[in-house]
Amino acid sequence: MQSKKMKLADLAKLAGVSTSTASRALNNNPLIKEATRNKLQALAKKHNFSLNAAASRLRLQKTNVIAVLINFDAETEQSIDDPFLLKVVSDINLAVNRQGYELLLSNSYMAGDDWHGYFIDGRRADGVIVVGQGKQQARIERSASAGTPLVVWGDPKTEGDYPIVGSDNYRAGCMATQHLLDQGARRVLFMGDPAHAELAERYRGFCEQVDKTPDATASLLKIDITSQAAYEVINHTLLSEGLSFDGIFACSDMVALGAMKALKERYVSIPNDVRIVGFDDIAMADISSPSLTTIKQNTRLAGQVLVDKLLAQLQGDKPQPAQLDVELIKRQSS
Amino acid sequence: MQSKKMKLADLAKLAGVSTSTASRALNNNPLIKEATRNKLQALAKKHNFSLNAAASRLRLQKTNVIAVLINFDAETEQSIDDPFLLKVVSDINLAVNRQGYELLLSNSYMAGDDWHGYFIDGRRADGVIVVGQGKQQARIERSASAGTPLVVWGDPKTEGDYPIVGSDNYRAGCMATQHLLDQGARRVLFMGDPAHAELAERYRGFCEQVDKTPDATASLLKIDITSQAAYEVINHTLLSEGLSFDGIFACSDMVALGAMKALKERYVSIPNDVRIVGFDDIAMADISSPSLTTIKQNTRLAGQVLVDKLLAQLQGDKPQPAQLDVELIKRQSS
Repeated sequence: MQSKKMKLADLAKLAGVSTSTASRALNNNPLIKEATRNKLQALAKKHNFSLNAAASRLRLQKTNVIAVLINFDAETEQSIDDPFLLKVVSDINLAVNRQGYELLLSNSYMAGDDWHGYFIDGRRADGVIVVGQGKQQARIERSASAGTPLVVWGDPKTEGDYPIVGSDNYRAGCMATQHLLDQGARRVLFMGDPAHAELAERYRGFCEQVDKTPDATASLLKIDITSQAAYEVINHTLLSEGLSFDGIFACSDMVALGAMKALKERYVSIPNDVRIVGFDDIAMADISSPSLTTIKQNTRLAGQVLVDKLLAQLQGDKPQPAQLDVELIKRQSS
Repeated sequence: MQSKKMKLADLAKLAGVSTSTASRALNNNPLIKEATRNKLQALAKKHNFSLNAAASRLRLQKTNVIAVLINFDAETEQSIDDPFLLKVVSDINLAVNRQGYELLLSNSYMAGDDWHGYFIDGRRADGVIVVGQGKQQARIERSASAGTPLVVWGDPKTEGDYPIVGSDNYRAGCMATQHLLDQGARRVLFMGDPAHAELAERYRGFCEQVDKTPDATASLLKIDITSQAAYEVINHTLLSEGLSFDGIFACSDMVALGAMKALKERYVSIPNDVRIVGFDDIAMADISSPSLTTIKQNTRLAGQVLVDKLLAQLQGDKPQPAQLDVELIKRQSS
């Protein structure tokens, strides 16, 4: 039974390493060589030693947890059950696990306004990945200037004291819109709210492409990023104006699917009467009928880059923003 | 600056409560009256007091974190990006947040074999929600007998020292199969692996219903719970046996969608030649073409019940298993 009373220091001594190395090795910290980790873990098993993670975190100021904070605006109906958000979280989770960390799923309601106090001073996580810039970046900036290791999934063109990883939203907007125009659309709708930094860039690309085409006109339907909001606004538009558009660039696949549902219910033919391009390339885009043309965001790569840049910060680096390529996936809706 | 050095005990004294109540109030623990929480939080703000959560967790043995462990078998290709798993995690997360906790997303690879040591002794979480029983329940049983507060999403008919919450899988199997038979299917396939406790119950219902129908025959295609596995096995079956079946009961919607893809590629008409019923009712079931008849699992309710039963254990209760109702959602595929 004496082995049960073994202390971390004893174990470290046995292995010939420092206690902090021993603790990191037992926490499976990727900064410690694999051989050392294996050695310590085998020793711990042999001596029936169980690491008290909370005490060790307290000593090392390390939690081995990365918080993913879904940054919702107060007025949005979007929630964690949105398929694109779930895809992003699951791809971040894969990358987090690969680095030997675990993911704490949080959101701006739980964390309140003082993210540094909540996650870092509160030792809930070593760093934070913020998903979504929201309409105002004050909370993110406050947290970054308080010294929170932090990366953001958002629009990489935004200026900030923190690295932003995101798609090339301007180029994506140009590509999607040019495709609608190429397919014959001339009265094109943008569905989404340009108050979001990412959507502003997509809308900028949209407007520029339409402006370059002499006989084309652009309209904006400013809506929340949900399928339901899209369904309602298209229903309302069809009732009040009739079919006043022949192309839709939706700010997300969920928005596109909501719009499509309203159009199908009123027997508007897709893509003959209205061509539709979505955004994200969630699994449903391929499954829907007609299948949905969309801009694919590379969330698998994004997860890796976000985690790499966060870990670089934990090591004292100051990583740069990263802009990821997008791809137009042509399907039946256009 | 003296306020910065304020201790938790001082704050508790000011508020006229014990230090443990003060700490719980600052952690927003729902066990503490809202008025008390508000009072303590206002006092803490006023005196610039920041709770050291790790230290407080160490004192109180409380993390305010609930771990969700996705229990994968070693040989499965299923992963956290499976839409049904993501739906379950997101519904648990909603319930976890409502109780003032946060969700640590873990899996059986990260946590290893000693879950009690990892989560509880390691103070990573106050309790564990296991999603999926897997093919063998040894790890779950070991963890429960080590005293881990633990609930399982699985088959509630399984005997165990821990509460299992799940759908009425036997009845679901009967309903799905009877529906296929009612629609005229006579050579019916079950796609899934009955080595999983939940699927065993669905398969039992399937076999019983087919046995009751004189001219009907049942076959089993034992496959992994992925869309890809289903696509491959249906392709292979069509090549080697031709169209040897006229009804499919798939163990998940993803399996059904994979089977449907293979059938559509070979111009097999759904539902005229083959009727298909899936399981889960993920969002894609409604979106696919043809839309997919399925058994709806009430994951929103499941999330609430799982969290309630886990919190009851944290308070010393021994909650019972719970069986949730299922519903047949008829769509175009049958």
